Amino acid sequence: MSMDRLIEKIIKLNNPTVVGLDPKLEFIPDFIKEQAFSEHGVNLTGAAQAVLMFNKGLIDSLHDIVPAVKPQAAYYEMLGYEGVKVLYQTQKYAHQKGMYIITDGKRNDIGATMQAYAAAHLGTISLLKEHEAFIADSLTVNGYLGTDGIEPLLDIAKKYDKSIFVLVKTSNPSSGELQDLKLENGLSVYEQMGKMCERWGKELPGRYGYSGVGAVVGATYPEQITTLREQLPGTFFLIPGYGAQGASAKDVAKAFDSNGIGGIVNSSRAIMCAYKKEKCDEQDFAGAARREAIRMRGELMLSL
Amino acid sequence: MSMDRLIEKIIKLNNPTVVGLDPKLEFIPDFIKEQAFSEHGVNLTGAAQAVLMFNKGLIDSLHDIVPAVKPQAAYYEMLGYEGVKVLYQTQKYAHQKGMYIITDGKRNDIGATMQAYAAAHLGTISLLKEHEAFIADSLTVNGYLGTDGIEPLLDIAKKYDKSIFVLVKTSNPSSGELQDLKLENGLSVYEQMGKMCERWGKELPGRYGYSGVGAVVGATYPEQITTLREQLPGTFFLIPGYGAQGASAKDVAKAFDSNGIGGIVNSSRAIMCAYKKEKCDEQDFAGAARREAIRMRGELMLSL
Repeated sequence: MSMDRLIEKIIKLNNPTVVGLDPKLEFIPDFIKEQAFSEHGVNLTGAAQAVLMFNKGLIDSLHDIVPAVKPQAAYYEMLGYEGVKVLYQTQKYAHQKGMYIITDGKRNDIGATMQAYAAAHLGTISLLKEHEAFIADSLTVNGYLGTDGIEPLLDIAKKYDKSIFVLVKTSNPSSGELQDLKLENGLSVYEQMGKMCERWGKELPGRYGYSGVGAVVGATYPEQITTLREQLPGTFFLIPGYGAQGASAKDVAKAFDSNGIGGIVNSSRAIMCAYKKEKCDEQDFAGAARREAIRMRGELMLSL
Repeated sequence: MSMDRLIEKIIKLNNPTVVGLDPKLEFIPDFIKEQAFSEHGVNLTGAAQAVLMFNKGLIDSLHDIVPAVKPQAAYYEMLGYEGVKVLYQTQKYAHQKGMYIITDGKRNDIGATMQAYAAAHLGTISLLKEHEAFIADSLTVNGYLGTDGIEPLLDIAKKYDKSIFVLVKTSNPSSGELQDLKLENGLSVYEQMGKMCERWGKELPGRYGYSGVGAVVGATYPEQITTLREQLPGTFFLIPGYGAQGASAKDVAKAFDSNGIGGIVNSSRAIMCAYKKEKCDEQDFAGAARREAIRMRGELMLSL
């Protein structure tokens, strides 16, 4: 089962980290942008090629110590279809290097249309033979539309050995505006969403006790993580908010069970831009990313 | 203001219809697929080219009687980056023909990332000059993450004269699982989301009393439409669910105010596949789409 594969990679590398590939242009070293723009022009194609070079450098440097990458679809869409092509090429490269790929798309729609998203990101398209539109082991999704927006994903996940992560409690400052409101049944909206994840997960059981339906739970709300870990014993967590957004290793530790599993912690900017913080030669951006990933791994492992 | 432009187009054409461009391959006439596959191969490129030919035929046939198109991102993503390129080409063609474009992406993310989606779909990207990644007048979004997932869209909407539609009460059977739950404050989750739309809309006021922040409200729940029209006097509705999903013209009429404005009704399959229902020569698919659009316009105008 797909979430089992992720957990096994985490155990093997002794590292519950996923690197967010959110390549804002300002994060990319100048020497890469200069090369890409001089070869392809100062346009969306050039920018997309810079992103691809940057991502490949990061993946080369990280794939033997970090189990997973999480490309954020928005930053690829921002560069138009050339950017979306680079999303695919990045996924393909990470896949070849053996990394688990979580496409952060937060997709959501009604049943018939969700089938199309599920096929696009986790399945294949039949035209004489099977074609892949994108490549991922997992997709983040938004459950506001209820079960028939999720079922098509479960079907595809079963067939192709994939997983999903449903937004439960997000890491941003205003996440509570809707998510924290109390329902008449005594649960908050995010707790209700968590409960739905546990229910959906029953269709994708895993051997470590965690189903193929994970939950996105922001580390910036450590109290809520603690409660959710108790309420959702069968749900694996994808945890944004560590580092740049302010959460500590102690905060994220609350997402883990007594065996030290239960979640994977995202770091995007701190790893992508480690060369800026280190003030090293920007040519060494990938080395700096690796040093930060090792530092983070150590910090996380100490706190679990 | 962008929602004013949509309302003026609706008034000018006397037609509150948006045509959903959800090009499943099974919806496309065989002669188009045969031509595209023979020119480009039976692969994602060939399929994407078939979608483009189909869309252009529909737009040619409808642009003088229907004010808006709503391409559904999922069906383009399903064909990979070649499909996403065709989404852009479809938008460009519809824009040249003067149609209002609502990209149905249901995008959502935290602030920094939502800026990227906003730039991608409603804004531009600065690289020496401004580049457009995609072309749309409006984008559908999911408000589960609260205000800081919406603010970047409001900023871009102001700057570039665009609008958004936030999911409030969706048309699918299980939409009530979360959306209908009662909160302690007495509102249902969807009513709370509607209230947030009214609040966000204050930043984008319009001259017809409707702001630049619209709401998606499914016609399949006519009672909820009636209540929401009263609760959200400043929010324009995008209304899916008419036709194939079972809602009647009488149901959707509840979304309109006493001046006969207040919403735009989506039809996807009934117009795209009108040639199948008519059993006419598939070469006449665009003519059949036009006949169905005229029939629907008549039915809607009678009920308002």
